[in-house]
Amino acid sequence: MMIRTFGKKIVGRCCAKVSNRRSCSDYQRSVRSSSSYSFSKTNQNDDNKRTKTQVYCKIAVCLAAAGATGFYCWKKFLSNSNHVTSLEKLAEDLPFEAGARRPDLPNYKYDEVAEHTSEETGIWVIFKEGVYDITKFIKQHPGGDEKISMAIGGSVEPFWDLYSIHLNKHVFEILESLRIGNVHPEEEMQVFKSGDHYAHEPKRHPALKVNSQKPFNAETPLQILVESFYTPNELFFVRNHLPVPKKSKLEDDFQITGIGLDSSISLTMSELKMKYKPHEITTSVMCAGNRRSAMHETKPVKGLQWSAGAVSTAKWKGIKLSDLLKDLGITEDSKACHIIFQGADTDIESKPYEVSIPLEIALDPNREVLLAFEMNGKEIPLDHGYPIRVIVPGVIGARQVKWLKKIIVSEKESDSLWQQKDYKTFNPSLNIETCDTGKAMAVLEFPVQSAICQPANGSVLKLENKKSLEVKGYALSGAGKKILRVDVSVDGGQSWMEADLYTETKTQMNREWAWTLWKLDVPLSDDMLRKQIDITCKATDSAHNTQPESDLGIWNARGLLENKWPKISVKFE
Amino acid sequence: MMIRTFGKKIVGRCCAKVSNRRSCSDYQRSVRSSSSYSFSKTNQNDDNKRTKTQVYCKIAVCLAAAGATGFYCWKKFLSNSNHVTSLEKLAEDLPFEAGARRPDLPNYKYDEVAEHTSEETGIWVIFKEGVYDITKFIKQHPGGDEKISMAIGGSVEPFWDLYSIHLNKHVFEILESLRIGNVHPEEEMQVFKSGDHYAHEPKRHPALKVNSQKPFNAETPLQILVESFYTPNELFFVRNHLPVPKKSKLEDDFQITGIGLDSSISLTMSELKMKYKPHEITTSVMCAGNRRSAMHETKPVKGLQWSAGAVSTAKWKGIKLSDLLKDLGITEDSKACHIIFQGADTDIESKPYEVSIPLEIALDPNREVLLAFEMNGKEIPLDHGYPIRVIVPGVIGARQVKWLKKIIVSEKESDSLWQQKDYKTFNPSLNIETCDTGKAMAVLEFPVQSAICQPANGSVLKLENKKSLEVKGYALSGAGKKILRVDVSVDGGQSWMEADLYTETKTQMNREWAWTLWKLDVPLSDDMLRKQIDITCKATDSAHNTQPESDLGIWNARGLLENKWPKISVKFE
Repeated sequence: MMIRTFGKKIVGRCCAKVSNRRSCSDYQRSVRSSSSYSFSKTNQNDDNKRTKTQVYCKIAVCLAAAGATGFYCWKKFLSNSNHVTSLEKLAEDLPFEAGARRPDLPNYKYDEVAEHTSEETGIWVIFKEGVYDITKFIKQHPGGDEKISMAIGGSVEPFWDLYSIHLNKHVFEILESLRIGNVHPEEEMQVFKSGDHYAHEPKRHPALKVNSQKPFNAETPLQILVESFYTPNELFFVRNHLPVPKKSKLEDDFQITGIGLDSSISLTMSELKMKYKPHEITTSVMCAGNRRSAMHETKPVKGLQWSAGAVSTAKWKGIKLSDLLKDLGITEDSKACHIIFQGADTDIESKPYEVSIPLEIALDPNREVLLAFEMNGKEIPLDHGYPIRVIVPGVIGARQVKWLKKIIVSEKESDSLWQQKDYKTFNPSLNIETCDTGKAMAVLEFPVQSAICQPANGSVLKLENKKSLEVKGYALSGAGKKILRVDVSVDGGQSWMEADLYTETKTQMNREWAWTLWKLDVPLSDDMLRKQIDITCKATDSAHNTQPESDLGIWNARGLLENKWPKISVKFE
Repeated sequence: MMIRTFGKKIVGRCCAKVSNRRSCSDYQRSVRSSSSYSFSKTNQNDDNKRTKTQVYCKIAVCLAAAGATGFYCWKKFLSNSNHVTSLEKLAEDLPFEAGARRPDLPNYKYDEVAEHTSEETGIWVIFKEGVYDITKFIKQHPGGDEKISMAIGGSVEPFWDLYSIHLNKHVFEILESLRIGNVHPEEEMQVFKSGDHYAHEPKRHPALKVNSQKPFNAETPLQILVESFYTPNELFFVRNHLPVPKKSKLEDDFQITGIGLDSSISLTMSELKMKYKPHEITTSVMCAGNRRSAMHETKPVKGLQWSAGAVSTAKWKGIKLSDLLKDLGITEDSKACHIIFQGADTDIESKPYEVSIPLEIALDPNREVLLAFEMNGKEIPLDHGYPIRVIVPGVIGARQVKWLKKIIVSEKESDSLWQQKDYKTFNPSLNIETCDTGKAMAVLEFPVQSAICQPANGSVLKLENKKSLEVKGYALSGAGKKILRVDVSVDGGQSWMEADLYTETKTQMNREWAWTLWKLDVPLSDDMLRKQIDITCKATDSAHNTQPESDLGIWNARGLLENKWPKISVKFE
């Protein structure tokens, strides 16, 4: 019954939010159709009478039924934002605290848990402070073994943020029955030996798809990327340019200096929080190299071979940079033209990561540039810029400096290589040797983009009398442009079907900072089932910009801003 | 010498303006290289001693020399903005007033002049109040007969705005020597009989390429479109949805009413001009149907068959709508969401032309929405919205209401067909019958666009030992996005050459309302000279949006916002 009520509540919220997009009746229908199944009420006292297998079967049946109605997937889109409240509420209701430390059990370090990933070694996972052996359970997991496998050797928490159906008393009961120990209380957040320039890297979730270890760069796996409107912090893609600074040396302050300021001023976030009204925005952060591997296939390009997972979405809380600058007397009439940001991360010569943005953007309250201190309601994790990072909605990730240490009000752009060399695009006929970086503009806002996340490219799917194939993905555009439409084609663009769109934000004109999720049930003909199906999509934003068919006009030597029509192929067996 | 100084002066201005775009040395080089020729100083007293032919030859030689250095074309880009001042200054220096009424000569009506367009009838043109017979001169015109032919039967003034080299004492001397009469002082600005709903249409310049007479819709011919950064008012494309209102009934006032206002308020522009600081902006106005004929070729679409000339650029002066709304207490917290504009033009049932824009845009001072009363330094011509029109930079022309009569502060969009039906795009697989206009968003901002204006598509060019072919066009993007690059290809997009860009505006981030003109000298190989050359181009804007290769992803039933790569073909003989 809880799920039922929960579902209805969310439908109401969703309706308000999809106005101006499309009728919400589709959403209501899909959720309502699922409300016919229920979870039987159990009594804690009966627990011991029930075998684990019985419980698994019960959940499996429930979930299978839910999956069949299509509810499971859409519910996940809808429910995540309520996760924190629900989890807390649930904890109060439970007679035991799932994941709490148990003095009667042994302690294990993260590395030990990470070694337990097979039937031979045992398959272990972490939930809060608890360590669990799920070797026998995994095959009976109602959601199949694909996604649970991504959590093994690490924490299940970020996955339960995505699949909030787990936030259920019975699931906690099963989990605690698999308990074997606790996370070691002295566990250190280090993966590399000290002395290494990369000695202070935090522990990362094993589900992240690593592109480079030093510096650490990893994307959110596509299978889970659009399972939730908000990406759990632990699964948020990571793009670091340099080693992560040592956490204990990071302080709650930064310097501001430059044109219009008599001297360098030191400001703490605590002071700023008291002085200025905190501001919260939901924005997607995307690396300019997202989907580079697709451009590389056309013609090789330099840079990390990102798939389409170098983008994630979070709720960020901070103070508006425009409030601070205004207060310090920096106006549009200033001689300054740029705001330079420096991070605490440094290269081997102790030079910090540094980039800049135009003053107009920094000063415009509607552009909502934040000095952020919270990510999805929590302290910003070390990998994402603890304790303060810059959030510049609508522009590429590279300008959104982590571990903020210094702001410089300047007449000129930053002269760092990240501003002057790395993030620039060129005429498709120029290569790294012939391109003129001095002439090209530093990339700031990005073009309209989309990706197909599910099914995975190259999947061989089970036939199972399917009448349609669910295709899911995301779309977003730079500079706050809203996604008007995502069209999907299975005949190379000769004909198009319009996808259902989903967002959790309600923004004003040109302030749609977050992605739009989309879904389409592609009807399957008998003919299609016999051969390979090539699926493509394209998004249109509110300025009616759309994606190019191929790389012919957009290929560039650095492989930036790949936004040609994404394509996947699947087969049935 | 005058030209020389003039050229230098302009180069200085140009340099300041192309900063952040590209080195201005190219521009300097091209202009400086032309400074070696001079105009001989003539004395008015010597006039009668000189035959007309001698004068024509002298100018022809000068201009041929100029043309050969490439100066002629670029100078035109650079000089136009100084036209008004130069013309006035020149008039003071002359011993006679060119184009002034001469009581000794007969009067002719516009229609009579318009009938003189061939050798048989005589070829007549108008300059100010003078009528001239240029039958014998036309073959000796130094600029060739193509462009002068566009002026016959009408006024040469807008062309001289484009080709300001004519603003020369000697040209005026030649012109006056061809004088045959005056424009009739009682000339009426009517082309249709009274009683007709279209009885009050103004006289239009014969050079405009008419797409529809009732309502009047005409584009600027591509041959002259990019000859000047500012389009002369007489040659500015015209897009009327209804008959033009009677000029004598149009008054200097409009009503404002709706949410947040106690009662309807009547305001005169004279009052507003006194109360608010006048504001001037340079913006291109583009019809959403621009280039529709190219989309129609792919698959038929409904609507006027515009080529690429449904766009023009002017300097507009008016008061900021944001100033007025703010003063009336309309804020973002208002219940209102839209500003509706009504024109004085009405349909057969007396319903006015009406559309709306979102309140956010109307209130944002940086979006610079104007209630305009001046166009290129002159009273707005009747065809362009005299005495007051709305200018909404960065959005399609349809939202920029002419002959403004009423502003309504509203909770909802306008329910007119121009807001709810006509200006909407759909999935390429939908046609007029299957599209759902209720679901689609009214088009507002437009995508990145470009066109090739010279040479004309299908031209057969003279070989003349050419080493390169000059290709010229324009590019622009919606929502104030700047044009970063225009690339040109002669091999279907397999390789690209970067064009030189030119603008006369210096705007802030996301406030580049006007087009960017571009030019490229395409190198010609022997092989290319022997066959048809297919030329294509594409523009990239500051958000790195670019144009799609084909209509595959953008075709829409109403043929709006065609922005696929433009293509032309030329041959040499």
